Amino acid sequence: MKNKPIGIFDSGLGGLTAVKEINKLMPTEDIIYFGDTGRIPYGNRSYETIIKYARQDIAFLKAMDVKIISAACGTVSSALIKTNSEENVIGVIEPTCIAAANLTKNKIIGVIGTSATINSNAYKYQLSKIDNNIIVHQQSCPLLVPLIENGFIAKSDEILCKTVQMYIEPFIELNVGTLILGCTHYPIIESVISNLLPDIKIINSGKETAKFIYKKLTEQNLRNTKNTPGTIKFFVSDSTENFSDSATKFLGYDICKNVQKIDINAY
Amino acid sequence: MKNKPIGIFDSGLGGLTAVKEINKLMPTEDIIYFGDTGRIPYGNRSYETIIKYARQDIAFLKAMDVKIISAACGTVSSALIKTNSEENVIGVIEPTCIAAANLTKNKIIGVIGTSATINSNAYKYQLSKIDNNIIVHQQSCPLLVPLIENGFIAKSDEILCKTVQMYIEPFIELNVGTLILGCTHYPIIESVISNLLPDIKIINSGKETAKFIYKKLTEQNLRNTKNTPGTIKFFVSDSTENFSDSATKFLGYDICKNVQKIDINAY
Repeated sequence: MKNKPIGIFDSGLGGLTAVKEINKLMPTEDIIYFGDTGRIPYGNRSYETIIKYARQDIAFLKAMDVKIISAACGTVSSALIKTNSEENVIGVIEPTCIAAANLTKNKIIGVIGTSATINSNAYKYQLSKIDNNIIVHQQSCPLLVPLIENGFIAKSDEILCKTVQMYIEPFIELNVGTLILGCTHYPIIESVISNLLPDIKIINSGKETAKFIYKKLTEQNLRNTKNTPGTIKFFVSDSTENFSDSATKFLGYDICKNVQKIDINAY
Repeated sequence: MKNKPIGIFDSGLGGLTAVKEINKLMPTEDIIYFGDTGRIPYGNRSYETIIKYARQDIAFLKAMDVKIISAACGTVSSALIKTNSEENVIGVIEPTCIAAANLTKNKIIGVIGTSATINSNAYKYQLSKIDNNIIVHQQSCPLLVPLIENGFIAKSDEILCKTVQMYIEPFIELNVGTLILGCTHYPIIESVISNLLPDIKIINSGKETAKFIYKKLTEQNLRNTKNTPGTIKFFVSDSTENFSDSATKFLGYDICKNVQKIDINAY
């Protein structure tokens, strides 16, 4: 069991922020990643559709015989939290909210995410469970995933900066001291966000989830016992080429030999 | 046969520009519309995935017993043109290119579309078949469908205007006299485009396709013989609610009672 891989999934590139952090924290662990690139984005879809897609993604990772599954996707995590039926799947909401509640000084926390995530109020609800005195301001940012997936990620990009500014400027007047990046895509543009909000502490959901999985595996005595570097295999539901290019850029090493296309509707 | 409905499909809202024009030209015709909202957008997906989705969309409309099918989607039309196997499906490429070739004076035509459409070179190829002297300048605009589907459609919208400007400004220096809106979503923001390019003639692919279907049905003696207004039924692959709201806004009348959700993977 210990030497089985960790399963991670997301609608596309976003979950790679978690892959990067998990690999940094636990370099000997093997990882199986699934990006549902044939059906991305998830963030504007209905609850029923998100749950249907997530169940197929989970079924695929279970078929790959992983020891733990991480829904490294804010949208899926927000939907799954309502179902209570997927106990073996680690979402990003709980780890991220614990970190934000620990970090906040003025107890005013901002959350940005996809429309589905924000409409679910999942982060707001989780933060209120931790500390009822925390004030939460939310903002849905439906354009950020399309911008990131289309390569608009540079600090110098005018359209990206204008869009980020439109979404996050209200947080300054609201005196938000801590901002949750409630979608795993957003850490890719963290420097653009922190540039516009230099005084706000930023919580990266991918990083917090990696720490949470590390803790969970250690507690359950499920850490890999190998001494060699772990392997990472990538699976996608659309062409491997587009994903390889973007993922290679993001991860900083060539992944093209490790990407396979699968039919997610078979799960 | 004559009184069977016309079938129209698109990845989401875009094909409604064709619905509007077909209903204006042939008000007694019944229409069945399918918007693949559970898998939108199509424009960044691979050729194989677009063809797979298009075949399912066509199979659904065939099961609804329509007399003619319109792929009211630039991305699907560009992919289908390569297959030559769907003779009963009217795409947007041919009607749009005929109109542009008739209208151009300086024989310099611009084309904007999704990444998949532009990479396919379908419009460029079709224009060269009509007149080999036409010069074609192409620009893929991957952010426009997400902007439109998320309601960023007003002339006063700064981010929309900046994005449109980024994509189409090069056409001015290239002396483009006629611009093809190679995606059926784009007519929704036609006024924003014409505002920035006041001297360029704009070709709306939805409108040209409606005229083409009118001609085709008349030639084949397949026009509806009723005297009463046609009915329009809408089918989608995600929640009916989101689609109803946006479609009602776009079409100018309430469609909420006429929208049904289907499982497109059953086709």
